[in-house]
Amino acid sequence: MKLKKNYLLSPGPTPVPPEVASAGAWPLIHHRTPQFQNIIKEVAQGLKYLFQTQHPVYFAACSGTGVMEAAVTNLMSPGEVMIVAEGGKFGERWSKIGAAFGCQVVPIKIEYGRGVTPEQVEAALKKNPGAKAVFTQLSETSTGCVFDIEAIGKVVAKTPALFVVDGISGLGAEVCYPDRWGVDCVLTGSQKGVMLPPGLGFISLSSKGWAACEKSKSPRFYFDLRAYKKALDKNDTPYTPAISLLFQLAEALKIIQKETIEGMWARHAWLGEATRSAVKALHLELFAERPGNVLTSVKTPAGVDGEKLVKEMRDDLGVTIAGGQEEMKGKVFRIAHLGYMDRFDILIAIGALETALKRQNFAMKLGAGVAAAQEILWQDPQR
Amino acid sequence: MKLKKNYLLSPGPTPVPPEVASAGAWPLIHHRTPQFQNIIKEVAQGLKYLFQTQHPVYFAACSGTGVMEAAVTNLMSPGEVMIVAEGGKFGERWSKIGAAFGCQVVPIKIEYGRGVTPEQVEAALKKNPGAKAVFTQLSETSTGCVFDIEAIGKVVAKTPALFVVDGISGLGAEVCYPDRWGVDCVLTGSQKGVMLPPGLGFISLSSKGWAACEKSKSPRFYFDLRAYKKALDKNDTPYTPAISLLFQLAEALKIIQKETIEGMWARHAWLGEATRSAVKALHLELFAERPGNVLTSVKTPAGVDGEKLVKEMRDDLGVTIAGGQEEMKGKVFRIAHLGYMDRFDILIAIGALETALKRQNFAMKLGAGVAAAQEILWQDPQR
Repeated sequence: MKLKKNYLLSPGPTPVPPEVASAGAWPLIHHRTPQFQNIIKEVAQGLKYLFQTQHPVYFAACSGTGVMEAAVTNLMSPGEVMIVAEGGKFGERWSKIGAAFGCQVVPIKIEYGRGVTPEQVEAALKKNPGAKAVFTQLSETSTGCVFDIEAIGKVVAKTPALFVVDGISGLGAEVCYPDRWGVDCVLTGSQKGVMLPPGLGFISLSSKGWAACEKSKSPRFYFDLRAYKKALDKNDTPYTPAISLLFQLAEALKIIQKETIEGMWARHAWLGEATRSAVKALHLELFAERPGNVLTSVKTPAGVDGEKLVKEMRDDLGVTIAGGQEEMKGKVFRIAHLGYMDRFDILIAIGALETALKRQNFAMKLGAGVAAAQEILWQDPQR
Repeated sequence: MKLKKNYLLSPGPTPVPPEVASAGAWPLIHHRTPQFQNIIKEVAQGLKYLFQTQHPVYFAACSGTGVMEAAVTNLMSPGEVMIVAEGGKFGERWSKIGAAFGCQVVPIKIEYGRGVTPEQVEAALKKNPGAKAVFTQLSETSTGCVFDIEAIGKVVAKTPALFVVDGISGLGAEVCYPDRWGVDCVLTGSQKGVMLPPGLGFISLSSKGWAACEKSKSPRFYFDLRAYKKALDKNDTPYTPAISLLFQLAEALKIIQKETIEGMWARHAWLGEATRSAVKALHLELFAERPGNVLTSVKTPAGVDGEKLVKEMRDDLGVTIAGGQEEMKGKVFRIAHLGYMDRFDILIAIGALETALKRQNFAMKLGAGVAAAQEILWQDPQR
């Protein structure tokens, strides 16, 4: 069988740097020891930097959905109104979690691929003056659309409502200043910009968020942030932490701090621009109205089988991108430029895409995409 | 600085076999692919074997406490009565979770170190004929006491109540036949007998347990087992799984199936017997009334500083055992013989214990412990 390498270009999981990967195999140490407390202290500091916040960032063994639940149960009480920007699968997840915990969900329905506008949020807040919180995404992974968190924050700040941002795919890739932008809760998962395997969730609350947390009447235990706060104040965790993932987190945060957060943002913007340029050179159409630094979602062109395209890229070429989720299946495909990726990952993605399109006899000039990418990639913004 | 190796002899985390450790560093693959579905299929099969159940075993990214919460919210509705065998810190955790979700908790208070008796459970069930469920531990990690699940199961089976067993430290080390013994819910964590790093929780329900799950009115989302069932039926997971920990799980389950579950139980019993024999030869007193295969808890003898003992063993000798938790701090210490351990780990534990006791001028014959252990260890039950 022909040798084939595997390339992970999906918006989570993302590739893991070798230093981080190998830390996943380190011998465990016990978590209730001064030795482990030092690791907690180190990652707590690094997480504040990654989040660009002055507030503590708590971490739990869970997927991103776990910390989304934490945001809902720690901020909302049953019966309270939550306004949700429903611009895709992950916006819809906010609504499902809210409904499961008895909140009154007021969705702002947005066409897939479009972002929520500050005006829409303003109108929803006006119509629901008692709303407890507004829930959005920084980047809606299912469509590739980035939301204007800064502008929405200004609108929410005029009301008593809390502002909650799911940064699961966006954090580290998109500019985000939660403290400055009036974000009361921001969260992310480990398998995206943080460059770790999945299994850790991270969440931070503003002072206003904490006040709500203390008063929330939602039932909660594993995700009760009051327990995480009490523990982290002593460099501890309330339950056995995912020790090997925390070893890996410490390594990843070193890499992140070395590149700097501004450097990360610039790199992701650069890779995103190159990808979009390549896609356009292949006469393909972008799906997201406001595409971001995280991933590029592309409309499957007429005459091409989108599911087959993704499958062939993965199984024949070794290049894993993502297809569309649920209703979007086959209609879009999504190329990530997220986490541990550099310029050559873009060449791989576009090279594989051209090959797979050509096999389906899509009318295109082979090489046009990679050439267009090179035009952007030859100049490095961080040089 | 003198070379010193580190030995993990605590009841979680436990040492990880090298094959399992290295799988934690493998390159990630995407979780929504046929390639990953094969891994899910494989671990689902292996988990049924480990659990000795015909029912599916679900897994989530979380610590053991996460699946304890899953047991409570999926089986109980607010206001319903749960009987809890409170024999230590983990029994108390059942009560705390129940209270957080609005259940009426009826604790059976047991002196630390003692086990709950079938008679006590029977009396509690008689006094609370409407009780929805009885919650116990297979092994109460904080005291080292093993509960007689088979006998308790017989008592619970005479009533409509569900029987829930936290097997977090016990599963794989103590004989347990959930289907035969009338257990409706059994759960465990990854960092104990399963020989993985922490970060995965496992839970299985009987048919009666599933019927309760379908009817439960407790709010839940991340730990809603209905979503896990729907996904696992298609070899999938509802949220992004902890991919690297699942790679490791597949490796660990291979080792477990090679040794056989009966072999695991026999090995743990043998190591436990050797440890107890050594402890007695040093004229130390066991703490647990019904000590098990998981760990040996020992009363700190008069004149010895228990916290200093544990600290010196860890920091000077490189041997991590566990001290007592909360009220038991300093009063007991706990030596695990759990997971990836063989006869020589017992010699290490006892050798380090003798050294640390001697340093505190405890009256003892140096070598008496290791010699007593050897009397048991020289013969291998699996040979």
